[in-house]
Amino acid sequence: MSRAAFNFSPGPAVMPEPVLRQAAEELLDWRGTGMSVMEMSHRGPAFMSIYEQAVADLRDLLAIPDDYAVLFMQGGALAQNPLVPLNLLGEGGAADYLITGQWSLKSAKEAARYGAIRVVADAAQGGRGYTSVPPQATWQLSRDARYLHLCANETIDGVELEGPPAQGTAPHEVPLDLPVVADMSSNIVSRPIDVRRYGLIYGGAQKNIGPAGLTFVIVRKDLLGRAHPLTPSAFNYSVVAESGSMYNTPPTYAIYLAGLVFQWLKAQGGVAGIAAVNATKAKLLYDAIDASELYENRVDPPWRSRMNVPFFLRDERLNECFLEEAKAAELLQLKGHRVVGGMRASIYNAMPLEGVQALVEYMQDFERRRA
Amino acid sequence: MSRAAFNFSPGPAVMPEPVLRQAAEELLDWRGTGMSVMEMSHRGPAFMSIYEQAVADLRDLLAIPDDYAVLFMQGGALAQNPLVPLNLLGEGGAADYLITGQWSLKSAKEAARYGAIRVVADAAQGGRGYTSVPPQATWQLSRDARYLHLCANETIDGVELEGPPAQGTAPHEVPLDLPVVADMSSNIVSRPIDVRRYGLIYGGAQKNIGPAGLTFVIVRKDLLGRAHPLTPSAFNYSVVAESGSMYNTPPTYAIYLAGLVFQWLKAQGGVAGIAAVNATKAKLLYDAIDASELYENRVDPPWRSRMNVPFFLRDERLNECFLEEAKAAELLQLKGHRVVGGMRASIYNAMPLEGVQALVEYMQDFERRRA
Repeated sequence: MSRAAFNFSPGPAVMPEPVLRQAAEELLDWRGTGMSVMEMSHRGPAFMSIYEQAVADLRDLLAIPDDYAVLFMQGGALAQNPLVPLNLLGEGGAADYLITGQWSLKSAKEAARYGAIRVVADAAQGGRGYTSVPPQATWQLSRDARYLHLCANETIDGVELEGPPAQGTAPHEVPLDLPVVADMSSNIVSRPIDVRRYGLIYGGAQKNIGPAGLTFVIVRKDLLGRAHPLTPSAFNYSVVAESGSMYNTPPTYAIYLAGLVFQWLKAQGGVAGIAAVNATKAKLLYDAIDASELYENRVDPPWRSRMNVPFFLRDERLNECFLEEAKAAELLQLKGHRVVGGMRASIYNAMPLEGVQALVEYMQDFERRRA
Repeated sequence: MSRAAFNFSPGPAVMPEPVLRQAAEELLDWRGTGMSVMEMSHRGPAFMSIYEQAVADLRDLLAIPDDYAVLFMQGGALAQNPLVPLNLLGEGGAADYLITGQWSLKSAKEAARYGAIRVVADAAQGGRGYTSVPPQATWQLSRDARYLHLCANETIDGVELEGPPAQGTAPHEVPLDLPVVADMSSNIVSRPIDVRRYGLIYGGAQKNIGPAGLTFVIVRKDLLGRAHPLTPSAFNYSVVAESGSMYNTPPTYAIYLAGLVFQWLKAQGGVAGIAAVNATKAKLLYDAIDASELYENRVDPPWRSRMNVPFFLRDERLNECFLEEAKAAELLQLKGHRVVGGMRASIYNAMPLEGVQALVEYMQDFERRRA
């Protein structure tokens, strides 16, 4: 296998090759400092410049307003599942959760250890698994919720929300003073978002941003200062914000790589530029699946993820063969999540259009040879 | 500046150059997989082999018995400060803390949010700051403590414990059933230790093991299962142990680098081999300081750290000049911690003897030119 292979891993996932090349070149000596980035004091001027540029570029890419803090933390989205209620609910309190797949379900279960968690709607109640999102008019919003939690893109089920829920004063709308909390682990920086529509956005970096071990939290500053007294200081958003993500030693090398990815993304036309490529990639793959007799994607078209495309072979006995031949064709890590089975192609920002084209050609060829 | 420079950073710290060279070579394609290590699914066979080898090598290096679990976590030692009492004290309960410097002081302060924390001795009570360790005969051990916490090496103050406290049944000894919990962030794998003398050993990796963002926890398995009900699942030692450190996505690239460091360390004769080099390095530097009129180290000789050597210029007006000329001589990151001032040379495993020789020569030359 060589770098000519295309890697469809759901995360940790493929990174832009120019980023990896630059990282390899700079690994032993970052720009004449005589040190690798991973050997620098996190408080020294060299690393501080790397950190500040990364934050500024992320702010720029997503047009993050000044009244939002950008935090770099550790532990990934699964660590945020308890940290969101610990930081926002204080001692007790209620929160609403929208369940659209495995990840939001997991978030709600962990949160229930910290407060009164109400499920506003569970997409699986329809009896077809996580294949659509219940219409907002059917959501049961609580009057006393401190926030509404949702997962913007379900990596396992391949279900993505188009954007934030409708907000306003109509009965079915989310009250304007109810902060929307979104897990965007797997679709951050894949398309433009209106940060103002959210109170808090969080996720692990290992899908669209950089290597595993870095967590991003974008939080409206008026939500700080509400933490449960038992919140560990290192995971208290207020402490992290006040220290500029330097209360504990941050994952410096991961931040450096994230910064390189942000620079690369700007060169692709930012999130608007990459969103157009992502839409093209997703359409190509879904169209091929829908046109086939062998493959199927079970998600209702309006909710199909542009990042993770799960698909099934109608004849499951072909699964192993499909994966083996895919590997031989240098198409890697296509196996579906163990919970749902089948296949999954994750086509994040760093997956080039050529990778999706190669996958579609392989899939069509595989089907033809079995017709 | 070039790699010929010597980097005395307290952490993130210098890494072995052969490790960095190998990482750079393998960065785009790990051994023909067509992927960077940072692009691999953490559950796939390629990364699993990297992870398992790293754990096996660490077990081997420290002769970790089978009834201890090795956990890879995130957040560093500062995140462990709350996690140790959350995991070991359950709801309430008491613990003893030995204070020998800034880090153990910080540990005790954070732990006090989670239980009844008693200070068995505070080295600063002597009125000379953190420059020695109170004799064990003077420690005030509690009868109801669930564990005794200590910091094996104080990075800021340069105070290191020779080994675990005396354990036994005599009045001044630590009861055999009282687990000793040690923060070994800055001296892990720098010398042989008897793991059996500890209930739990933890630390951040960014000094002697690898890059920032990786945390190691070595815990006797009978201490698992006592966590406070509000302990976040991702930071619950039992959950992390049962999942083989894969409950949440681990910091895969940092684990890979740690594994390369373990391999390098084995080639140096393991911890016994490197301990001899470390002793030579420390003696060289302390002897030079003690023989000088300009420099002083204030720590009582039996407690002087072999990892972090803080020293002061008797004429503090020379500080800036000392640092500037050091940098010109390619001796980097020698500034002391802001809390104590002065200078600090961190001479972890990856600092070669030649680096300490170069530092000593520079210091002597600097002094001569001002005599």
